[in-house]
Amino acid sequence: MRLFRTLLTAAATTALLVGSVHAQDAVTAEKLRDKALLDRTAWDITEDLTTTIGPRLVGSPAMARAKDWSVAKFKALGFTNVKVEEFAKPSWTRGEESAQLVAPYPMKLNIVGLGRTVATPPEGLEAEVALFRTYDEMIAAPEGSLKGKIVVITQPMVRAQDGAGYGVAGISRRAGPVEAAKRGAIALLIRSISTSDSTVPHTGVTAFGDDVVSIPSAALGVPEAEQLERLAAKGAVRIKLKLASTVDPKAVAWNISGEIRGSQTPDEVIVIGGHLDSWDVGTGALDDATGVAITTAAAKLIGDLPKHPKRTIRVVMFGSEESGGSAEAYVDAHKAELPKIVLAGESDTGADRIYALQIPKGSSGHPAIKTAVRVLTPLNIYLDRLPSPHAGSDIEGLEAAGVPVIGLKQDASRYFDYHHTMDDTLNKVRPGELAQNVAAWTSFIYLMADSDIDFRVLSAAAPAAPSH
Amino acid sequence: MRLFRTLLTAAATTALLVGSVHAQDAVTAEKLRDKALLDRTAWDITEDLTTTIGPRLVGSPAMARAKDWSVAKFKALGFTNVKVEEFAKPSWTRGEESAQLVAPYPMKLNIVGLGRTVATPPEGLEAEVALFRTYDEMIAAPEGSLKGKIVVITQPMVRAQDGAGYGVAGISRRAGPVEAAKRGAIALLIRSISTSDSTVPHTGVTAFGDDVVSIPSAALGVPEAEQLERLAAKGAVRIKLKLASTVDPKAVAWNISGEIRGSQTPDEVIVIGGHLDSWDVGTGALDDATGVAITTAAAKLIGDLPKHPKRTIRVVMFGSEESGGSAEAYVDAHKAELPKIVLAGESDTGADRIYALQIPKGSSGHPAIKTAVRVLTPLNIYLDRLPSPHAGSDIEGLEAAGVPVIGLKQDASRYFDYHHTMDDTLNKVRPGELAQNVAAWTSFIYLMADSDIDFRVLSAAAPAAPSH
Repeated sequence: MRLFRTLLTAAATTALLVGSVHAQDAVTAEKLRDKALLDRTAWDITEDLTTTIGPRLVGSPAMARAKDWSVAKFKALGFTNVKVEEFAKPSWTRGEESAQLVAPYPMKLNIVGLGRTVATPPEGLEAEVALFRTYDEMIAAPEGSLKGKIVVITQPMVRAQDGAGYGVAGISRRAGPVEAAKRGAIALLIRSISTSDSTVPHTGVTAFGDDVVSIPSAALGVPEAEQLERLAAKGAVRIKLKLASTVDPKAVAWNISGEIRGSQTPDEVIVIGGHLDSWDVGTGALDDATGVAITTAAAKLIGDLPKHPKRTIRVVMFGSEESGGSAEAYVDAHKAELPKIVLAGESDTGADRIYALQIPKGSSGHPAIKTAVRVLTPLNIYLDRLPSPHAGSDIEGLEAAGVPVIGLKQDASRYFDYHHTMDDTLNKVRPGELAQNVAAWTSFIYLMADSDIDFRVLSAAAPAAPSH
Repeated sequence: MRLFRTLLTAAATTALLVGSVHAQDAVTAEKLRDKALLDRTAWDITEDLTTTIGPRLVGSPAMARAKDWSVAKFKALGFTNVKVEEFAKPSWTRGEESAQLVAPYPMKLNIVGLGRTVATPPEGLEAEVALFRTYDEMIAAPEGSLKGKIVVITQPMVRAQDGAGYGVAGISRRAGPVEAAKRGAIALLIRSISTSDSTVPHTGVTAFGDDVVSIPSAALGVPEAEQLERLAAKGAVRIKLKLASTVDPKAVAWNISGEIRGSQTPDEVIVIGGHLDSWDVGTGALDDATGVAITTAAAKLIGDLPKHPKRTIRVVMFGSEESGGSAEAYVDAHKAELPKIVLAGESDTGADRIYALQIPKGSSGHPAIKTAVRVLTPLNIYLDRLPSPHAGSDIEGLEAAGVPVIGLKQDASRYFDYHHTMDDTLNKVRPGELAQNVAAWTSFIYLMADSDIDFRVLSAAAPAAPSH
């Protein structure tokens, strides 16, 4: 209860501090924020999506059910202009997978195939291991030098609040299969891109874009990767690997959206959202049912106001983030409208608490932003001084097309323990932290939607060096 | 370093406080304790056993390799009178296992068969689920009322420092299959007996003794059990289950032992140890490579003294704890010697720190115990006031035959996160806490071995009510 008393006091104070134009907005934003802290809409959405739909791989029957679920959910929550935008998205489906240590002794290895991996022959592959403790060591191996080997890369991932370890370690997954194949490898096993010490392996897509994945590629549980390091230090190690998968080149996916229509300038649109698709392991709770839930609940709470803010708030449930496609599809479908999208933001790092607000350059002095910072401060969120927001994969397309983006940065310390695993499940979501996310999105987006802030103009006027 | 300065000061103090008979012993015990805190023998044993042998299921080729490893290890560490005692132990071997949610939608379920479970037909079993949130609710179902159903019990396990939640929740695993079958069930799935929130399922033996397990029985990951609870609350749930296993009724197992021979009364024996066998999932690091390592390292450090203590210290690596057998086999093989076994103790709750010493009733006033308590206090260990020690499964047979037992209780708060899973691996062992275990065992066992304390006499003279 202590938090709430503090917030109520802060509400009155903020109204006094900010200019009269924004005083009423500040009070409304604070009321929305405090209501959101006790609202269960986001929890209910997360529970419903993960329980009644389960895992939602692009191209799966579950994803089609998820699309229908989205439409029904938007309508039930009072959204208008609900749209389903279909786009082509070849789909990849996992088959049976297994791996065994063959020498120095037989032992089952816990693995998961990487997204887009090719299959092994039905009888599997068996070969000696070439183990590298870093990606760079593997890259240093001359072309052809790994001929006939199963390459194992055991580079670990650094735990970091801002998730920075993911980009560094993730190179093994993203580029490893292509680079190992160039050097003659017949298969690749990577230590899971994980901050956990668990045996549960982490999948994730490899070889974005047009790169061709030519060798079977999978991720090992962390203890298995460490066991292989110790065994390889003692002598020869052999592994047998079986992976199966199928591809449907004609599959489709959908971006689904619903709106809280603006009361004064409805053609000015703020796009927020998360992604509806997930990996086939786990139930995609943190990645990204909670992102869908946070942004949908925030817009719904704003929509429940007696009077909508000036601008339209559009929530998009993106339909193919994990293996790519929804960001590009969204831009393609909204080319004509792009100049009227005044802001975009995505929630896609789980549901642990937000600790920083990131805004476009040049905007920190605007009264709407000053108000927002004051409203977010009691939620223990600071204004990030770094030069550019992290956009989120699904709005990178919009960002590239010139749409201003914001970031509400979530604490990622724990996120990569579960990311892309069977353990990405509802019991990893902390309701109190989920509610803090909703409170931040609700109050911040309300303030932006009821303002006339033009980030494009502010940004163009700002000096080249980071200034906010 | 702070700890060590404290301990050195304590050493001098203790020598002043205790009687002259025990003063020299106290100094030696404190030196042993402090040496053990920086000794790596236990870590090396744990790493070697889990890495070079891996999982060690009774009846497996790996267990035979582990037996040879034990003999070599004892000899290399300077133990004498190394013995391998064979006994009959029917073995159970896991085959392919899988489970799928069939309705309301298809989803893979993460399971592991319980030890001794029977197989399903090769094509699997499919049936509607009857879900119970507690074991008692299942027991309350009338006989025959679960006919044709797959029973799911989702009772959770309480996290507790002393591991007390295991006995309570474990009834679902131990008695569930027999009781569910009585009521007509065709299969049983239990929520893993686990304190974790992980999807990694926990195996363990069911139906001890002569009970016949007649239905296929497996454990679900925790998130899966919770998902089934939510789905069952909404409507009918169907599951398909496949389990395969084989039994070898003629298999054998071994208890392997080595000794630090006593310098004055070598026929008086203190038996300590852990169990060498493990489940087939994971590498049995916490259960119980560390128990073997802690007790072996403790005896080895005592054996390195210029003069051995009066009594013989025997380390036993028990060969069939997980599905039972080694405790009885040990008593059978040592019937004639039992009166000369002056004390027994087992380490079998992982490797987190020891927090309590448990001793037989009537012994707390003995100078050797008083010295021991003083020596253990700086390790942050107290004398437990509860009436009876927890013996450990492998020395329950000795205890039942009248051998006094002690307990050095380990903090079990984290143990049941990994117990009996693929995640029971070396990276869960904390070297500093492992060393604290060795320090406690080394100093305590040294003091008992160099004393003439007779727990049988003290216990017989003690009042019936708990008194120490």
